[in-house]
Amino acid sequence: MLKEYKKLKLIKKTGKKSLSIIKVKKLEIGGDKIILIAGPCAIESEKQLDKIAKELSKSGVKLLRGGAYKPRTNPYDFQGLGEKGLKILKKIADKYGMATVTEVMDTKDVELVSKYADILQIGTRNMQNFALLKAVGKTKKPILLKRGMGSTIEEFLSSAEYIMKEGNSNVILCERGIRTFEDNTRNTLSLATVPTVKTLSHLPIIVDPSHSTGEVELITPMSKAAIACGADGLMIEVHTNPKHALSDGYQSILPKEFKNLTEEIKPIIKAVNKTLQ
Amino acid sequence: MLKEYKKLKLIKKTGKKSLSIIKVKKLEIGGDKIILIAGPCAIESEKQLDKIAKELSKSGVKLLRGGAYKPRTNPYDFQGLGEKGLKILKKIADKYGMATVTEVMDTKDVELVSKYADILQIGTRNMQNFALLKAVGKTKKPILLKRGMGSTIEEFLSSAEYIMKEGNSNVILCERGIRTFEDNTRNTLSLATVPTVKTLSHLPIIVDPSHSTGEVELITPMSKAAIACGADGLMIEVHTNPKHALSDGYQSILPKEFKNLTEEIKPIIKAVNKTLQ
Amino acid sequence: MLKEYKKLKLIKKTGKKSLSIIKVKKLEIGGDKIILIAGPCAIESEKQLDKIAKELSKSGVKLLRGGAYKPRTNPYDFQGLGEKGLKILKKIADKYGMATVTEVMDTKDVELVSKYADILQIGTRNMQNFALLKAVGKTKKPILLKRGMGSTIEEFLSSAEYIMKEGNSNVILCERGIRTFEDNTRNTLSLATVPTVKTLSHLPIIVDPSHSTGEVELITPMSKAAIACGADGLMIEVHTNPKHALSDGYQSILPKEFKNLTEEIKPIIKAVNKTLQ
Amino acid sequence: MLKEYKKLKLIKKTGKKSLSIIKVKKLEIGGDKIILIAGPCAIESEKQLDKIAKELSKSGVKLLRGGAYKPRTNPYDFQGLGEKGLKILKKIADKYGMATVTEVMDTKDVELVSKYADILQIGTRNMQNFALLKAVGKTKKPILLKRGMGSTIEEFLSSAEYIMKEGNSNVILCERGIRTFEDNTRNTLSLATVPTVKTLSHLPIIVDPSHSTGEVELITPMSKAAIACGADGLMIEVHTNPKHALSDGYQSILPKEFKNLTEEIKPIIKAVNKTLQ
Repeated sequence: MLKEYKKLKLIKKTGKKSLSIIKVKKLEIGGDKIILIAGPCAIESEKQLDKIAKELSKSGVKLLRGGAYKPRTNPYDFQGLGEKGLKILKKIADKYGMATVTEVMDTKDVELVSKYADILQIGTRNMQNFALLKAVGKTKKPILLKRGMGSTIEEFLSSAEYIMKEGNSNVILCERGIRTFEDNTRNTLSLATVPTVKTLSHLPIIVDPSHSTGEVELITPMSKAAIACGADGLMIEVHTNPKHALSDGYQSILPKEFKNLTEEIKPIIKAVNKTLQ
Repeated sequence: MLKEYKKLKLIKKTGKKSLSIIKVKKLEIGGDKIILIAGPCAIESEKQLDKIAKELSKSGVKLLRGGAYKPRTNPYDFQGLGEKGLKILKKIADKYGMATVTEVMDTKDVELVSKYADILQIGTRNMQNFALLKAVGKTKKPILLKRGMGSTIEEFLSSAEYIMKEGNSNVILCERGIRTFEDNTRNTLSLATVPTVKTLSHLPIIVDPSHSTGEVELITPMSKAAIACGADGLMIEVHTNPKHALSDGYQSILPKEFKNLTEEIKPIIKAVNKTLQ
Repeated sequence: MLKEYKKLKLIKKTGKKSLSIIKVKKLEIGGDKIILIAGPCAIESEKQLDKIAKELSKSGVKLLRGGAYKPRTNPYDFQGLGEKGLKILKKIADKYGMATVTEVMDTKDVELVSKYADILQIGTRNMQNFALLKAVGKTKKPILLKRGMGSTIEEFLSSAEYIMKEGNSNVILCERGIRTFEDNTRNTLSLATVPTVKTLSHLPIIVDPSHSTGEVELITPMSKAAIACGADGLMIEVHTNPKHALSDGYQSILPKEFKNLTEEIKPIIKAVNKTLQ
Repeated sequence: MLKEYKKLKLIKKTGKKSLSIIKVKKLEIGGDKIILIAGPCAIESEKQLDKIAKELSKSGVKLLRGGAYKPRTNPYDFQGLGEKGLKILKKIADKYGMATVTEVMDTKDVELVSKYADILQIGTRNMQNFALLKAVGKTKKPILLKRGMGSTIEEFLSSAEYIMKEGNSNVILCERGIRTFEDNTRNTLSLATVPTVKTLSHLPIIVDPSHSTGEVELITPMSKAAIACGADGLMIEVHTNPKHALSDGYQSILPKEFKNLTEEIKPIIKAVNKTLQ
């Protein structure tokens, strides 16, 4: 089945140089540099994001995440601040010289979100929202495509191809865990996805240890494992007050925990001959 | 967790009379009448649909399915005829006095599809496309909501609530199988979903034995099982030439096989004190 | 892969008459008669089993279940009464003219359990305990083989073949649910297993709605569905005091609920042209 | 649920010194030294094992694996050489100064296998064969307990407790992948198991990248990831002629590939402050 991919735009060509490097401002995703993406699940207020971003900036984070449109299971849960959130994200990121990534959930919002964000995220629930994939494929923005929690690798790569077919080759994949019978973690982090994708495709792939485990104490060890098996970066939820976060607080780590994480992964980054940008 | 649902619009009230019955033309979905929905996976041409609908009409089918917008894993596969397909669907359905159901995949298309179809289908890949759920929730059309292949029942019902919250209570649920390790069927048909949903909610639920098994020889026995445990109807893929179907032919049955199926389920329908409409 | 089965002893030959009927005293499992197996999860005392069996006998049950050796996840939980339990099972079954089925967990116990029970059960955790399969294959006893909760149908049938290869063709299969991401039921009852097994093999297959759902209110509807799609019988946990049962009480139904169940399944049994024995 | 474990023998006490170190001859499993276990899936002949062990010895392997009793899905597949295989294993291991691990599948064989092997392995299919767990718990031998492919971490640890309850605390856990819907790898390697087990228990845990991926090209990256997240060692299938191996050849790597693997993991071992023994 995977052999059929050979005709696709995402398929790996011979030679290491053919690997894609996606550029976002001065950052490079997909080469020998590791990218760290951090920030809160949801943007709650300017004050909240400023506080978090300030700390993350001190830890060297150059790419800030934060949701303005939140895909929540329950329609009565906090749905995000919308455009107001996008403006806060841009303002705070500019203040600390960071680039940004945020989720877009509707074809109608693609243009608006593109005005404020440096990278457009397609969330796990929309991995096979083909109308949305086509819409972001028509922009020039880098796209962070999260794997569907119930999707195979073939489907994951095919969704990347939907974006690329429209002319946008700046696709960054993100493994975020799959649905299994395991009940001790929120999802099952399937790290073999990383070298599998690297074997088949020239696209970069990062790992989200926050959503895949849902357990604060597992985030650092799984971050180390992700980099060891070839991931190009990590996306981690950080909050200054996890207990009162409006979304997914239980899996968010504190800025000081994040700082420790960056120290712990450095020897692994060095061991795989990469550098932290 | 499910107890929290008690505040939701979809939650079951005491007494059988509180069960929702969704009306589509003269048809009723959700009471003591069983609905059979049949047709090809994709609308391929007027001739193809006419041929299939003619046969189905003879077997008593009053609700015709057929996809004009097809959510395909691979972007290079047949994506459906679009509006042309919608026009064919309406024309053929009118010819045989049938009602219609067809999938809508993009918020931009909701108005257009509503012009032609009697029921709007939200497919398994879009079960948590919340922008789309909100958009169809703003119409008056009955919505057929298919369960996400990697979604829990809580998520399934919460997605129904997204639609109802916008003012549209005409939601019909559809169990279509989930992703598991089983490799002998396309998906695993989780029939316990039917009585579980009936316990929690007043909404009707039908079963799709075609997608859930992907095996022609399993469609009739699983149709019988679905009705026995309380399903309000069935949605079945029928094609006059399965081998040359443009989508999912391998799981489509022939019109004469469908006719046999209708005969085989009649004693079960009677055994559960329902009638075939 | 399934085609390779054609050389196996379990593979279906042409013609309905080739279907195996397993005889247990005057009972027949696998033909046009439906078998009901009922009883407590664990044999707790003679008094407990007598009370339950008396009620079940009134409801027409002719095959009594009860565990003397219990495979418990936690080593500190009640492990069963052992031989004392076997003696109680035989005594009570004789009193009410019933046949018996009970689990054997160790090759060393096969001879002992065979002395007391009419059918030897291989539990889900031992479905691929090949030493045990070979050991029971050397007896003449009918074997009730439960599907492993993480096993494919190919593995399930191959385990039956292990028994048959040793000379014992009296194998009764039992679908009891599989491990999936679903969290509203204890397991996911995969009913498509029933017609799949019937297509491939001449062996009878029954369904266990108690373990597969773990929810009292789902047992009757899933029993109806099981018979509708071709199951040869049901195995159901019944207890007179579920709240104080030493094992799995939460999924046990009361004798009066069991009686209602037998009434509810009768029309379905008739609809599939079978009779309740 | 996991909190209930606090009374169990396997539960972690405060302080790093409380972590168990299992001694096997001069080897230590569970401390700051990484153990590499390698060898063929099945012992096929003295010549075959000698050839493989000779190469592995040159790569520094001190613990040789090889199956004499093979748990095969199909009863007509090669079932292992039995006692003859055990004798070969011991002879070859002695020749190269190695310790050995081999699977025991039947309570009757525990004594015999204990005569020849340094570590007794309980395979994935027997993880909840409680009779076998109790039997090996009565020996003094170190036990390598593989996780059931459909088992939760709670069940995995509870099975370790079964062994320890009998008086044998020398339990080494092994994560070997679980059953999920993923179809590009043989199983899904759930590496979060490693830090989860380390959080809950004082027992050592190793990882089997061969069975968990079933893909030769994924074995090295997943070995690196395993060590990065805290695994105490690796168990890897190596064969000099994978294409003609009698069992699982497709996932076996060549001795030279294994040698490369040992080179590639060294920087990771160093990065986590451990040494290769």
